[in-house]
Order: sequence, then C-alpha cells, then structure tokens
Amino acid sequence: MECDVPVQQIHIKPEMTISGLISAMERAGAYNGGALTRAVQIAGTMFREEGVTRFFGLAGAMVPAGMGGIVSDLMEAGYIDVLVSTGANLTHDVIEAIGCHHFRGTDKCNDIELRHDEINRIYDVYLPNESFVEFEGFMQEVLSKIPDKSVISISDLLAHIGSNLKSGILATAARKKIPIFCPAIQDSMIGLQFWLYRQTHGIVVDAFGDMDRLMDICFSAEKAGAFLVGGGVPKNYILQSMLMTSMGFSYAVQLTGDRPDLGGLSGATLDEARSWGKVDEDAQTATVYGDATITFPLIMAAVMGR
Amino acid sequence: MECDVPVQQIHIKPEMTISGLISAMERAGAYNGGALTRAVQIAGTMFREEGVTRFFGLAGAMVPAGMGGIVSDLMEAGYIDVLVSTGANLTHDVIEAIGCHHFRGTDKCNDIELRHDEINRIYDVYLPNESFVEFEGFMQEVLSKIPDKSVISISDLLAHIGSNLKSGILATAARKKIPIFCPAIQDSMIGLQFWLYRQTHGIVVDAFGDMDRLMDICFSAEKAGAFLVGGGVPKNYILQSMLMTSMGFSYAVQLTGDRPDLGGLSGATLDEARSWGKVDEDAQTATVYGDATITFPLIMAAVMGR
Amino acid sequence: MECDVPVQQIHIKPEMTISGLISAMERAGAYNGGALTRAVQIAGTMFREEGVTRFFGLAGAMVPAGMGGIVSDLMEAGYIDVLVSTGANLTHDVIEAIGCHHFRGTDKCNDIELRHDEINRIYDVYLPNESFVEFEGFMQEVLSKIPDKSVISISDLLAHIGSNLKSGILATAARKKIPIFCPAIQDSMIGLQFWLYRQTHGIVVDAFGDMDRLMDICFSAEKAGAFLVGGGVPKNYILQSMLMTSMGFSYAVQLTGDRPDLGGLSGATLDEARSWGKVDEDAQTATVYGDATITFPLIMAAVMGR
Amino acid sequence: MECDVPVQQIHIKPEMTISGLISAMERAGAYNGGALTRAVQIAGTMFREEGVTRFFGLAGAMVPAGMGGIVSDLMEAGYIDVLVSTGANLTHDVIEAIGCHHFRGTDKCNDIELRHDEINRIYDVYLPNESFVEFEGFMQEVLSKIPDKSVISISDLLAHIGSNLKSGILATAARKKIPIFCPAIQDSMIGLQFWLYRQTHGIVVDAFGDMDRLMDICFSAEKAGAFLVGGGVPKNYILQSMLMTSMGFSYAVQLTGDRPDLGGLSGATLDEARSWGKVDEDAQTATVYGDATITFPLIMAAVMGR
Repeated sequence: MECDVPVQQIHIKPEMTISGLISAMERAGAYNGGALTRAVQIAGTMFREEGVTRFFGLAGAMVPAGMGGIVSDLMEAGYIDVLVSTGANLTHDVIEAIGCHHFRGTDKCNDIELRHDEINRIYDVYLPNESFVEFEGFMQEVLSKIPDKSVISISDLLAHIGSNLKSGILATAARKKIPIFCPAIQDSMIGLQFWLYRQTHGIVVDAFGDMDRLMDICFSAEKAGAFLVGGGVPKNYILQSMLMTSMGFSYAVQLTGDRPDLGGLSGATLDEARSWGKVDEDAQTATVYGDATITFPLIMAAVMGR
Repeated sequence: MECDVPVQQIHIKPEMTISGLISAMERAGAYNGGALTRAVQIAGTMFREEGVTRFFGLAGAMVPAGMGGIVSDLMEAGYIDVLVSTGANLTHDVIEAIGCHHFRGTDKCNDIELRHDEINRIYDVYLPNESFVEFEGFMQEVLSKIPDKSVISISDLLAHIGSNLKSGILATAARKKIPIFCPAIQDSMIGLQFWLYRQTHGIVVDAFGDMDRLMDICFSAEKAGAFLVGGGVPKNYILQSMLMTSMGFSYAVQLTGDRPDLGGLSGATLDEARSWGKVDEDAQTATVYGDATITFPLIMAAVMGR
Repeated sequence: MECDVPVQQIHIKPEMTISGLISAMERAGAYNGGALTRAVQIAGTMFREEGVTRFFGLAGAMVPAGMGGIVSDLMEAGYIDVLVSTGANLTHDVIEAIGCHHFRGTDKCNDIELRHDEINRIYDVYLPNESFVEFEGFMQEVLSKIPDKSVISISDLLAHIGSNLKSGILATAARKKIPIFCPAIQDSMIGLQFWLYRQTHGIVVDAFGDMDRLMDICFSAEKAGAFLVGGGVPKNYILQSMLMTSMGFSYAVQLTGDRPDLGGLSGATLDEARSWGKVDEDAQTATVYGDATITFPLIMAAVMGR
Repeated sequence: MECDVPVQQIHIKPEMTISGLISAMERAGAYNGGALTRAVQIAGTMFREEGVTRFFGLAGAMVPAGMGGIVSDLMEAGYIDVLVSTGANLTHDVIEAIGCHHFRGTDKCNDIELRHDEINRIYDVYLPNESFVEFEGFMQEVLSKIPDKSVISISDLLAHIGSNLKSGILATAARKKIPIFCPAIQDSMIGLQFWLYRQTHGIVVDAFGDMDRLMDICFSAEKAGAFLVGGGVPKNYILQSMLMTSMGFSYAVQLTGDRPDLGGLSGATLDEARSWGKVDEDAQTATVYGDATITFPLIMAAVMGR
C-alpha cells in the first residue's frame, strides 16, 4: 500500500495569492479541499491542451446566483466548445441580458408575503414578476423574427435568441458560434413563451434536431473533456454523448451538492461513469462536493491565474 | 406562539402494523419522521378526493432500484393522471419489460473491472451490456412501426412504445391512457435509439408537441395535486405547468435527497414554490428529505393500507 | 464479477405488514432501501444471538423527537448492554420523565419571537423555558442526595439520577443496571446543573472513572455488536472501546445523516472502521443514510416483529 | 419587501487576488458563496474588535486534513482566546508534533488490505499504526511527569502535554496560555493512553475541573464571538457556555457539512440558537454549508489578507 506523501499542515500568510492558497491546499490534499486542487489541475490541462473538445454542463440555479458571468468569461476565453444547460439558467440569462436583475434577498422570509409582493424566490435570491413581463415582450418580439413553417433545432432557437442579445451566456455563445444544447427547453419560461407564440405560428422545434450536430462533434473529437457544474440533464447528456463513439472522456470534473448513495446520476461518482465507458479507464477525474457558488469561482480564479 | 401538542415518545410493539407505526410517528411528529406522516396524510387526501388531477414526478434512478413497480401499481389504482419522468427511468422500464434484469451489486467495486466485464453500474445496482443489445433490438423493431414522415409528440412516442410492452410503467400508462411527459427524451438510451433509427427514416419528434395536451389538462383541472419523487426536470415541469392557469397546486408532496441551501430547484422547499404561485398559498405540502427507496415504499404502503 | 440476484420491482399491497414491506424492499435491495433491510437482518441477529455484548450509541437530538421511547423499549427487552449517549439526550429524557413535554412546532418561525415567548427550538420541536425551571428543581434535589466529598464516575452520576425517576431511558437503565456512558456530560444542562451544585459541595466526577468498567465489559465480551444512531462522541467512544482488546465488533449498524467525503467520524463508513480494527474484517455491517426519525422506528418495528 | 441590491454576475480576472475574488462573490451574494463572504466579514470584525472574547470550536477530522496549521496560526495571531476541540484532533496534533505524519491516500481502497498493512484510514488520509507506537511512548513519558495523587482538570492535562511539544495546536496554546477545553477527552487515543497510565498511577482528571475557569471567562467577557468549524461537542459546549451569563454571542460563524432538518445540534441554524439565547437577537451570524477543508482556508486567507 503506497503511503509516502505526507499531508502538510496549511499555513495562511497575509499576502497569500489565490495560487498560493491552492498550492497550500494541494500540499494538504485531503477530503474535498484536496479534490478541489485536483479539479484546478485537470481543468487547467483540459482548457490548455491542444485538440481537446471541451463540454461544459451548467445545471442548478447558477445564473441567478451570479455564476453566469464566469461561464461567459470561459466562452470568451475559448475554454468551452459545447455548452449544455437547463432552460431555467438560459431564461435567467435572458432576464439579465435585457437589463432586468435578480436581487439579494433572504431565505428567512414569508413566501406568501413575497407572493403578494410579486416577488419570486430562489433560495435567497429574489426575482420580481415585472422581469417576466419584460421577458415576455422580448421573447415574443424575437420569436416573431423566425419564419413561419420553420422546423428548427433547439440550439438554432437558442442561437437566434442569443443573436438578439448583447451580453451574457446566450449572446456570447451566439457571437462565438458555440452551440448550446438544452434538451428540456420546454421545461422553462423560454419554453412557455415559445408555446404561447406557437399558438398562432406554425413553427416546429425538432427535439432530435441537434443530435447529428452533437454526434459530429463527438466523432470528430481527438480527445474530450467535461466540466460539470451540477448534475441533471446537462451532466447526463454530456456523459452519454460520447457513448456512441469508441472513446470516453479523458478529463472530467464535477462540482456537485448531491451524494452517490441515493443512486441518482447527479450524485454519481465519475468512477461509476467508467463502468459505462462514458469516462475512459485512465481518465483524469475529480469530484468536488459542495456548493458551486464557492467552488466554481475559486477553481476558475485559480485556473485563469495559472 | 402556539405550543400545545406534545411530542409523544414512540413505543414499538411486536405486532405493529404499518398503520400503527405511522400513527406512532405522527404522534411524535418531529423532523423528517413527522414530515413523512404528513406526506401520508396529504397523499391519501389527494389520491381519494374527487376532482383532483394528480401529477406524478419520477426522477432519480428509481426503476433500477425497484421503485417502478410501485409507480405501475399507483397507475393501476387510478392514482396518477399525468406522469412526468426522465428518459433514463423509462429506458430502465423497457429493459425490465422485455425480460432483462437489473442486478444487486455493490458500490465497493472496481469500475474498470466492471467495464471489462461489460457491466454498467448504478451505485449498487449492476446492469449488463447485453441488456442494451436486447433493448436495441426491441426499440428498432418498435420504431419501425411508426409511419415515416410522421410528426409526433414525445408522449405519442412513449405511448407507442408502451403499447408494445406487457408490463411496467410504459405498458400500464399506455393501457390506461395516462400520458407520460418526458421533456428531455433525447437525454436517454431511448433517445439514442431514436436518433439511430432516424438516420434512415423521416420522423420528427415535436419538442413542444405535448404542451397543448398538458395545458388542456391544467386548465380543466378543478384542483391539482403533485407527488414528486426526486427533483430535476420532472419536478420543475410539473410545478411550472400550473403557472399558466390562475391556480396553483392544492396538494404537493416531495421526497428529495437534495437540500435547499444550494439554490437548485431539486432541493427547493415547497414554500419557495408558493412565492411563484406554483403552489397555492393555502396548499397542503410536505417535504421528506431522504432516500426515496425508503420513504416512497413506506408512504405508499401506508396510503394503500388506509 | 458476480451478478445474478435480480432487483425485483416492489409492489405495494393494501394489507401489507411491516414484515411484508421489508421483504419487498429486501428483494429490491438497492441504495439505502436495501441497506435498511440489511440493518434489520443484522440487528435481529445481534439482538438474538447468545453471547453478544450489545453497545448502543445515541447521538443527535433524538429524545426531543420521540425516539427515546424506542431506546427504553430496547433496554426493557434486553437488547442493550451498554448505552453511550450525549448529555443533551439525557437532559431531554429527564425533562420528559419529570412530567414536562417537548411540543410539536415548526421550523418556519421567528426565533426572536420564540425567545420572547421563552420557547427554545430544536428544528421543529419547541421546549418552553419553564421545563428548565422544573429540571433545575429536580436536579438540585437529586444531587443533594450524593454524599459530599464523593469521587464518582459519570455512569454513577447518571445511575443516581435514573434511580430517582420512574420512566424513560435513565430510569430504565438504572432499574435494569445497564451502564450509561456519557463522556462529555459537562456539555449539557445536566452538566451545568452539576456545576451549579458543586459551587457549594465538594463532589468530584472522575472523567476516567468509567474506563475500567467499560474495558471489563469489552474484555469479557465473547462477541460485540454496535447499533449506532447518529455519530459524534457515542459512535467514536463505542468503536474505540474494542481497540484495546484483540477483537473488533462482529456486528455494526449505523443510521446517519452525515456523509463520508467530509472526513469526519460521524459520516465515516464502517469499512473505514475495518482498517482500524474497530470492526472485524468479516463483520456484518450496514450503514443507512437518512433521518433516524424514519429509519430507526422502521428498523426496530421490523426487528421486534420478526 | 425590500429588494434593491442586484446580484452582480461574477467575472474572473487572470490577476485576481483572494480579496478580489471574495469581493466579486460578495457582490453576487447568493447561496453559500454569499454566506462565505459574510463569514469573512464577521470573522474579520470579531478578530479585530477590542474587547471581544473569541471562542473557537474545532470538530471533525481537521488536523489529519492539514487544517491544524491554520488553527495554530490563528492562535499565534491572537485571534483565539478559548479553544474547544475533540480528543481526536488533539491526538492527531500530537502525532504531527512528535514528527510522525498523516499521508495522502485514497478512499477507493480495500480496508482489509489496509488493515493488513497496518494503515488506519480517515477518508482519503492514511495513518500508519507505527505512529501510535511513537505516540504511546511520548504520552507515557509525558504523563509520568504529572505528580501522583494529583487532581487535575482536562485543560491542565492538555496544557501539560502541549508544554512538552514544540509545534502545533497544543504547543502553541500552551506557550500562549490559551486554554483548550475538551469535554470528552476520554473519547480519544489521548484518553486511552491516560487510562493505561492510570492503571498504576493515582491521578484523577476532574470532569468538571474546567467549568469555573470557563465560566470566569464568560462572565468577564464584554462581548463574545464564536467561530465554529464543525459541530459536535465543541459547538454545543461553546454555545451553552454563555447561557449562564445574561448575554449571548454577538458574533457567530459556523462552517458545517450537516443540515438542519435532521434536528441535530451540529446542523442546527444559528437562528435556532437565538431562541435559546445562546446567540444574541441582534448578533451577526453566518452559516456556510460545505467541507471546511475548502471554506476554512479560503475564509482565513481572506480575513488575514484584509
């Protein structure tokens, strides 16, 4: 049993940089603190190595918590080739991009009072109903630019929305031609707006319209890496995408608040993914358990700083 | 501050029935044990009250863990009017229905060895690759019965599959004409099989093809109840479905292993849902934190036994 | 890789008994539902096998939630030879035994209002301050019966308190001569009351006064079993107790809401305990993750019913 | 309902400092990321304000994970007036101080093989048995310097051990005359060593011997602050300590991996503590859910850097 790298006690220095902090955590190397430093190392490798196709999964209510900015930054820096997210995150991205805001609130509140005040709560973030009024106006206007009788894919719809925005995830992806896949787009306010619009316009969104594009990306990848914030559809859709090819992911990092013993995919270990061949036998992987509003900014600040 | 119902210490009797156990837990009434007894009471009410439209959400890898049988039983008993699930659960349901099995394994294993043995792991459940070979044969055969050039909805596709099966969730739903909505059907082995088939056949699955049907159900409901096993797309899709109507859910029970402080919808409280109007101000709700492989059978045994 | 026991889908029958439910969960056998059925089997074995010394650990705020009654029942039935608990649980046991009550409240409350109303909160359980007034009266009276200048052990102190009570854990243990070890007795209201009394009376509680008795029990055990509700000091103290002998525990069940990846002992797996020799290499063990207010009554109802 | 501070999306800059990262997280301000920035602010205040007595609670296996170095640093910097910890952390501190090491291992291992290799596992940290041989030698030697027939307190015992060490928590505390309280000292390898020594030497450790000293500190405090890493006895003992005085804590920060809905004190909110009067009505508090091996170094690097 090999057992020769000692845990080094962490010492905090007043002038410590992020890189210095991560190095100290790396020399300690235990529990999720150690896993986080491995995530920094793996993300750094997969972001910088030539020929790696990088998939990024974004689940959980991350945009309302201010994490969308980091995702845009990563796309801007060329570190994301494929984004898979939830309709909710993209809805909140539109809301910010049209000039509305999420607000800092508290979870120690009376939700019935909030209801009366027309404020929607996401844990300790507040979103006024009026944002959805503006959102509706924007969406109906944008959707009206799609020719009737079209059959479009979900990523086409999202690129169309993004091309009508100036900032945020959708706008950056549209400008940089990064595909955004969102299998359950119906399951969101974007979906409800589309349904409303469709009552009077004959557009079909082909649920499988993105699969060829996704498979082309997978088959043409020399190597693949996955950075997964949260689980859900984004995690599963990314991991299953490589199943059709003869190879799995070479790099995989997940930041999750779930746990493996409940059996769900969201909390499943990346080792479990090896049994399926989703992740290669010799892949470099790291799972960091915890809230991504802490781990995601810290990891990315360390990766960008290196 | 009202404070007059004492916690009664639980005493276990050798001849205790499930109903007796739940009553004892109800008289204690604290923490998740207390919440579970409220879930039994609410589920009993929403299952038996006339005029309640009952939505059932099934997320997490529940079918591989043997929970699918309970869902079929509930449909058989007339307790589910709308089912929303994940493509994964439905894939595993097909696998069981065509005579393949999931097997009891262990999470203390070597996933690379499992890979070599062609066994896919879901925590402590094993699924041999050969099941997917049989699954492919069945799926390609069933899909070939759909006329080319069709435009179908996801629930149509699922009903078609179910009508070719004899047992399980899809079969029971098809026989009982219960719609199954699965917004992210692409994100599953069913989805990959459909994509394969579609390479040579011109069928379009309309991503929004089910929205009218769902909205009709919502608008015609006198009252609505939701029973949610796990979070993810099923939870969100069910809760958002009533948003377009003037009313929210009157009854809501969720069994979740997630937690609210991470901000994600899966772990969000049902009180949070009140601020959005998804759940009515005076709705009866219960959240039971824990593994649904324990709480779901126990609650349903208590509800069915009353 | 062995892989031959199929997961059987659970079906709920109206007339289902607890034993029938557990059997159905056993035939499914996955995730924590499967672990719970293994806990039932192991607890049944260790309670009924001759020559097994049974240690019971009780951590977490279990008495305020009504779980104390089950512990008394187990002692009454002869299933506990050594109890290790926290000062808090024993304080709450005294409060119930002197006729005061814990009350069913809610966690959705204003704690400052509760403070003004002189109600102390334990998640959704309320405990009025007046209980502590009665508690003080009882404790000072009972302590006054201990001869001054005594040097006593913690278990002696607790047995003395129990012998002055009619019902509950302390009373039952005192009557049945079951030792209660509580290493951190200072860390509780019992401890604060003792400190108050001691201001004017010269009694010394010997922190190590129970170690000989505990070690005698350990060295004379043919076989040892541990049933652990929660982690903390009770779990660690029980597991370390066998370290001095040449054998470890042959049976171990833990019900925990913690998780292993944080490194703490409370969430540590029982496999980890094998590396230390606390648990035997071939011991039967089961860990059930979840809230013990659900899993503990269910397991015990199943064990007592068999 | 006030709702006027917008969540600002986080942007990562290559040259970002820790202070810059924390500021960006503060401007986002949601979920645990937001809570962490409040913890930084509160810890900064309570460390620097004159007249605040600072209690530090250290539970969980933090020393084996390299967090002990930070605790020593905080004591050295004068930021801890009272330390409450577990016997396990102090045992591991001695092991490091006498020149032995914890090693970086993996949780994906065979614990029976580890047992045969004489390696004890703490999640992904390995501790060879030989450390305990050296530990025994050191402890028996140190204990032999205590005069027979002594009656000592736990903090006296720990100060005596610390005064025989050169580095680490115990050594720093001894040198700086910072009391270390450890109510359940029996529940540790230090405790087992003491028990062994005591077989032949008449020393009594008075379980309540530290209460007067603790109460003197509490009664003489102008203001009190608590920084709690983990729950267990350290959290409870610190929070209850102020109960005897007329005031509660003015500042409280907890880093915990537990959760409130299980009812246990370890996961209880600091609001719950307000109902008891342990924390003042207008106290500044922050709870950060997650693994302290991430949150503790990050918070302290931010506090020390300000």
